[in-house]
Amino acid sequence: MSHASPSVSALAGPLVDALVADADVLRLSVTRSACGARIVDAGIAVPGGIEAGRRIGEICLGGLGKVGIAASARFPRWSNMVTVTTANPVLACLGSQYAGWSLAEGDFFALGSGPARALWAKETLFGELGYRDTASRAALVLEVDKLPPDTLVAHVASECGVAPENLTMILTPTSSLAGTVQIVARVLEVALHKTHALHFPLDRVVDGIGASPLPPPAPDFVAAMGRTNDATLYGGDVQLFVTGPESDARELAEGLPSSTSRDHGRTFAEIFTGYKGDFYAMDPMLFSPARVTVTALETGRSFTFGAFHEDILDRSFA
Amino acid sequence: MSHASPSVSALAGPLVDALVADADVLRLSVTRSACGARIVDAGIAVPGGIEAGRRIGEICLGGLGKVGIAASARFPRWSNMVTVTTANPVLACLGSQYAGWSLAEGDFFALGSGPARALWAKETLFGELGYRDTASRAALVLEVDKLPPDTLVAHVASECGVAPENLTMILTPTSSLAGTVQIVARVLEVALHKTHALHFPLDRVVDGIGASPLPPPAPDFVAAMGRTNDATLYGGDVQLFVTGPESDARELAEGLPSSTSRDHGRTFAEIFTGYKGDFYAMDPMLFSPARVTVTALETGRSFTFGAFHEDILDRSFA
Amino acid sequence: MSHASPSVSALAGPLVDALVADADVLRLSVTRSACGARIVDAGIAVPGGIEAGRRIGEICLGGLGKVGIAASARFPRWSNMVTVTTANPVLACLGSQYAGWSLAEGDFFALGSGPARALWAKETLFGELGYRDTASRAALVLEVDKLPPDTLVAHVASECGVAPENLTMILTPTSSLAGTVQIVARVLEVALHKTHALHFPLDRVVDGIGASPLPPPAPDFVAAMGRTNDATLYGGDVQLFVTGPESDARELAEGLPSSTSRDHGRTFAEIFTGYKGDFYAMDPMLFSPARVTVTALETGRSFTFGAFHEDILDRSFA
Repeated sequence: MSHASPSVSALAGPLVDALVADADVLRLSVTRSACGARIVDAGIAVPGGIEAGRRIGEICLGGLGKVGIAASARFPRWSNMVTVTTANPVLACLGSQYAGWSLAEGDFFALGSGPARALWAKETLFGELGYRDTASRAALVLEVDKLPPDTLVAHVASECGVAPENLTMILTPTSSLAGTVQIVARVLEVALHKTHALHFPLDRVVDGIGASPLPPPAPDFVAAMGRTNDATLYGGDVQLFVTGPESDARELAEGLPSSTSRDHGRTFAEIFTGYKGDFYAMDPMLFSPARVTVTALETGRSFTFGAFHEDILDRSFA
Repeated sequence: MSHASPSVSALAGPLVDALVADADVLRLSVTRSACGARIVDAGIAVPGGIEAGRRIGEICLGGLGKVGIAASARFPRWSNMVTVTTANPVLACLGSQYAGWSLAEGDFFALGSGPARALWAKETLFGELGYRDTASRAALVLEVDKLPPDTLVAHVASECGVAPENLTMILTPTSSLAGTVQIVARVLEVALHKTHALHFPLDRVVDGIGASPLPPPAPDFVAAMGRTNDATLYGGDVQLFVTGPESDARELAEGLPSSTSRDHGRTFAEIFTGYKGDFYAMDPMLFSPARVTVTALETGRSFTFGAFHEDILDRSFA
Repeated sequence: MSHASPSVSALAGPLVDALVADADVLRLSVTRSACGARIVDAGIAVPGGIEAGRRIGEICLGGLGKVGIAASARFPRWSNMVTVTTANPVLACLGSQYAGWSLAEGDFFALGSGPARALWAKETLFGELGYRDTASRAALVLEVDKLPPDTLVAHVASECGVAPENLTMILTPTSSLAGTVQIVARVLEVALHKTHALHFPLDRVVDGIGASPLPPPAPDFVAAMGRTNDATLYGGDVQLFVTGPESDARELAEGLPSSTSRDHGRTFAEIFTGYKGDFYAMDPMLFSPARVTVTALETGRSFTFGAFHEDILDRSFA
C-alpha cells in the first residue's frame, strides 16, 4: 500500500459494535465463549436475515466498503442485485474480506474472513500487499453452521494479539440468509483474488465495483455453496480500474471471467458432483465473475469480456 | 415473535427527531397542536418532497427498514424504483407500517400507520403477532390533507399511553410527493398483509424484499390513490423467504399476485369508478404486488407467479 | 426560496469534516496552503477513488443530496449507474453544486462549485434564487489538476467572509476517478440549469431525480471532459416535478433534452474538435440529459422527451 494504510480492524470496530447493539433487531444471538470471546450467531440457532448479512458484508470489508441491495432488471426472475463499492478495493477485499485464514481443530474446519486476518497477517498475501494491521480488537467471520471449539477461539485471539474478550467471531452458515448475502457480497473480492492469481500487480488496481444477483438460500450445503458461487460465476459483474499499459488491462480482462475456465458452463453443483465432491479437483480459475470490464487508466480504454448466463442461474437458483 | 422483539417506537424515535431537526431542509412544517402534540406537515401547506417521503417511509417501518431510490431499466418510462428491505419484515411492515388504526371524528377520517399502532395494539393483528410495544413516545403517520381535530390527537396520545407532547403525528397527503413515496414504500407490507389474509402463518415469513416504481403524484385524490396502488398492483415485485413445506410456499406464491383477483387488468381508478366509488366493493385480494417470488427455505425452491403490466402503468401514470 | 432556507455551508460542514477525517481511507491528501486554507487533493498526487468522488458529490450538493451507485441493466456494457436525489433540488443543485464561480489568476483557471458559492453569492443566479448563505466556514470544489495559487485561495476565503483556515478547497481533476463521479453526479443540476436557461421559473421546480451511467475516466483532458459530458448528454435521465400549467410542463420537457440541440448526435469530443476546441462555439443548449420527464403537479400529467443513445456512449466510453 503506497498510501498511508488505515486499520481495517479499527474501521470495522464501530460496525461490529452496532451489529451487537442491534442483535435483537437483526435477529442475531450474542454470547460469550468459555475463553471470553464474543460469538455472534447470524443463522444457526436464530433466523438472522438479509439485512444482517448486508451489515456483516460491510464488516468483512474492513469498514472500507458498502454493500447495497436494489431491484434491477438484469435477470428478470432474480431482481435483487447486490452492489459492492469500496474506498480501497484491494485493502477491503484482499486485506480483509477474503476467506484466507484456514482454521481447523478436530473435525471443525472453517475459513476465516474479515479484518482479524490482517492482525494475524501470516498469509503470503499480506507480504505481497505490504500490509499488516495492529489493533486492540479483532473481528473474524466464519462461514460455518456450528460453534467453533473454544480452544480454537482462544487461538485466534492469541494469534491476533488481542485479549479473548476483545475478539468477536461472527458465524454465518452457507445456507442462511445472512450467509447468502455476505458470500455474494464477495463478487469484487473474487475478481481481485483471480487478478492476483493471474499475477497482475495488485498495486495497479486503483478501484473497482462489483454486482451480483442475490440467490435464494438452499438448505443443502452443496446446493447453497453452489448457488452463492453461481451468482458470481454466471451473474457477477465487475469493473476494475487499473494503471499500467493498456495491453495489460486487456489481457487481465480477457483472463478474468469465469468463461476462461474449462469448468465453465455447468452449475457449481453439477461441476462439484462431476468431480465426485472433490473441491480441489475443480479449476481454481473458475472462481471469477461472469463478466469483467477492465479500464486502463493510462489510456482510458475499457475491455469487456465474459457474459451473463441467465439460463444457468435459473437452473441453479430455482 | 419468537425472538426478543425490539420496540418499534424506540427505534423510530431518533428518525423522528432527525426529521424534525431537518424540517427546513426537507420543506416540512412542525407545529404543536392545542394539546401539545407535535404535528409534522409533509405536504399540505408546505412542499415536502421525495426525500421527506423516503424518510417518513423508514419511520413508518418502525426504524426496522430501509427505503432506497435508484434508477432501474425495468419500466423504461418510469425509471425511479423504490426498494424496501427490512431487518424483520413482519414486525416492520405489519407491526408498524400497515395502516390499521382507523381514526374518525366528525367528518375527519384517517387510517393511522407507523410505530404508534403497536403501543395502542388493539388491532386483532397484534394478538396474532404476539407483539405489543411499550415506549414513552409515539409516532403516527396519517395519509390526510387536513389537520386532525385536536381531540382526536389527544385521544391518540391517551390510547398510546404517552403524554400528548410525546406524540408526533406526520401528515402526508395522498397527492403529495412525500405521500406518494411513503405509500409505494408499502409494497412489501401489501404482500405481507395478503399473506396474512390467505391464512399463511406470519411466523413462517422469515424475510422479504420489495420494489415498486415511483409514480408521479396526481392532484386528484382518486387518481393519486389509483397511481400509488397501480405502482404495486402492476409494477410491484416482492420476494418472500418462508419456512415450512414447499407446497405451502408454492400455494402462497400462486395466491399472492394481484392477477389472482377478479378486478385485475384495469387501473385502480377504472375499477374504483366501475364500482361507483365504493372502495369496499373492490376485491380486497386485488391489493398485492404484480409479481411475487416465494422461496421455501426448507427445500430452497422458489416459486414465481404474476407479471408486470407496463401498459397499465403507462395508462395510470401518464 | 419561499420556505425557510437552510445553510448549504452549515449542512455540508460535517460532510467535509468526515471527508478529511477519512482522508487515508479515501486515499486523499489534506494540506494547508500558505494562507492557512485546507486543501484536499482528490486525485492529483494521490489516487482518490470512486467513493471519494461520491462523497465529494454530496458535499457539492450542499449536504442536501444523496449520490448512490448501483448496478443497472439500462446500458448493458456500462452497468454502474449514479442516482442523485435531493431534499431540495434547486437549492442543492443551483444554490450549491453548479460550477458558477469563475476563478482566474495568471494561467490558473477554474470554475468553483459547491456551498461556498452561496456565501460569495455574486452570480446573478443567486439574486434570482433569492438565496444568500451566511456561515463561518466554506467549502469549494475545483475541477483542476494543479494547486490553485495561494493568493487566489486567500481571495476566495475573503470573498466568502471566512478566515482562510475555515476554508476547504477540494481538488478533483477531470481525469480522476473522484472527478468523474462528482461530475456525472451533476446530471440533475444540468437539467435545472437548462430549465433556468429556458426561462422556466425555478420556484416552480418542486422536486427532481437524476441518473447517469458512470463513464470510465480518460487521461486526456478533452476525452475526460467528453465522457463525463456524454454520460449526461446521451445516457442521462432526469424527472422533474413542477407546479403551474400543464402546457408549461410539456414545453419544458420538450425543450430540455440534449436532442433539441443542433450539436446533438456526435460525442462531445467530436463536437469540440469540430469547433476546433472552441468550447464557447458549442451550443449551450446541448448541455442537458438525454431523456427528461416533466410531471405537472397541477394536473398529474407527465411528459417524456428525448432518448438514450447507447451507440454514442459506447463510442465515447470505450
